Amino acid sequence: MASAGIGDSLEGFHAVRAAVDAGRLTGLQIERSRLKRPDYQRLVDDARQSGVAVEQVEDVRDRAVTGAPQGVVAQARPLPLSPLDEAVAAADPAALLVLDHLEDPRNVGAIARSMLAAGVPALVVPERRSAPLGATAFKAAAGAFERLTIAEVKSTADALRRLRKLDVWLVGLDAGGDRSLFGCDLLQEPVAIVVGAEGRGLSQLAGDLLDLTVSIPISSEVESLNASVAASLAVFEVSRMRAATLGAPLSGGSGPLG
Amino acid sequence: MASAGIGDSLEGFHAVRAAVDAGRLTGLQIERSRLKRPDYQRLVDDARQSGVAVEQVEDVRDRAVTGAPQGVVAQARPLPLSPLDEAVAAADPAALLVLDHLEDPRNVGAIARSMLAAGVPALVVPERRSAPLGATAFKAAAGAFERLTIAEVKSTADALRRLRKLDVWLVGLDAGGDRSLFGCDLLQEPVAIVVGAEGRGLSQLAGDLLDLTVSIPISSEVESLNASVAASLAVFEVSRMRAATLGAPLSGGSGPLG
Repeated sequence: MASAGIGDSLEGFHAVRAAVDAGRLTGLQIERSRLKRPDYQRLVDDARQSGVAVEQVEDVRDRAVTGAPQGVVAQARPLPLSPLDEAVAAADPAALLVLDHLEDPRNVGAIARSMLAAGVPALVVPERRSAPLGATAFKAAAGAFERLTIAEVKSTADALRRLRKLDVWLVGLDAGGDRSLFGCDLLQEPVAIVVGAEGRGLSQLAGDLLDLTVSIPISSEVESLNASVAASLAVFEVSRMRAATLGAPLSGGSGPLG
Repeated sequence: MASAGIGDSLEGFHAVRAAVDAGRLTGLQIERSRLKRPDYQRLVDDARQSGVAVEQVEDVRDRAVTGAPQGVVAQARPLPLSPLDEAVAAADPAALLVLDHLEDPRNVGAIARSMLAAGVPALVVPERRSAPLGATAFKAAAGAFERLTIAEVKSTADALRRLRKLDVWLVGLDAGGDRSLFGCDLLQEPVAIVVGAEGRGLSQLAGDLLDLTVSIPISSEVESLNASVAASLAVFEVSRMRAATLGAPLSGGSGPLG
């Protein structure tokens, strides 16, 4: 099936569950053998209650693009996208992540999951790069895309120029960064983190538009980190730097060991 | 081909490159079309110089288990394993990561890459769980396994009991942890981080043997993080806590913005 929009084709339990909860599912195919599990049965009940056509089949794998669809594939109305100013307003101070040419959809999905976990709620995706936001990315995100504010822009450069006008600082994550990500006080301000491609890093054009580049301090024994690991360290650093100022960590304590 | 040991079957440029550098390659099949690239040509030259039989083929994908072998598959002598006390001695203070039932080989590979980057040099793998250390894990690790000290133990419980006798603190990473990972001062001592399975977390038996469990502070909107992201945050916290005491970060600076 041709992709008509972001998130219109889903696989995997958590991705489908989140789309049902968001009220955007239109069709569901599920393996009969899974219905013994209460969570799968509840998924089917909830989908039917929302008027979704549910089809029970022997095996969904021939309809799936991920290797392990966990017994469910589904169709949905595309995820609603937001204008850029709404993405900026999604957190206060603003906290966005801009995807500059990331290629592996599993990385994109894992990053979405980390963003939501770390309280960085807005994702900016260049139009020509929305391809990775398919069933594989949604499965890796385990439902996180449904709760992020997602803005689609013409290009990374376009996004960066417009974000600057909205008084958002532009911080690129790059192996050759100006300073360390850790302890970067600019993350306490309205900020957009720009993440480049696996291996190649930030595009030249994006790099020229940034206020600052930061790098993760790593041993000289490795060239780089996995892109989703690097982006996850960045969004958690936003969360930590803000908790340090505002005295409001997301949860958990860090008192001395008893 | 049946797997005779850890790391005996390799795919992907960086994984094969690292095994050549380690002097353990025995056979290499490479796609003819790749030889136009200087890095691939150098790989072949270096392999031949070490006496490795190199076969040029049209397409390696039918011999590969990963979806994208990047034009190279190879055979190698298994990675040399170390006794547990050597793994403990690989860093001072000791810094180890114990894999308790992790299932996705891509996660295991990404964790290895983060460990090396963060200066946590020793990996402990239960014998019955070495299955994930195949070509997929090695490709995701991009060469990192070659530089880690890897100890194979009978089981996680066996590893934890022996590590305690070697005066290593046992810290489990778990969603329901006693305190926050961030700022945990026990990470400045000789420590082993124990990482559980995707979804299910730490096994009961492992949990009972730990000195402490720590969790990553996350938004209530998500259930959990990707396992490789969680483990990566943990190993970088070891690096940060030790840099804070010793005043010796791995690299990079964190002065105020100019």
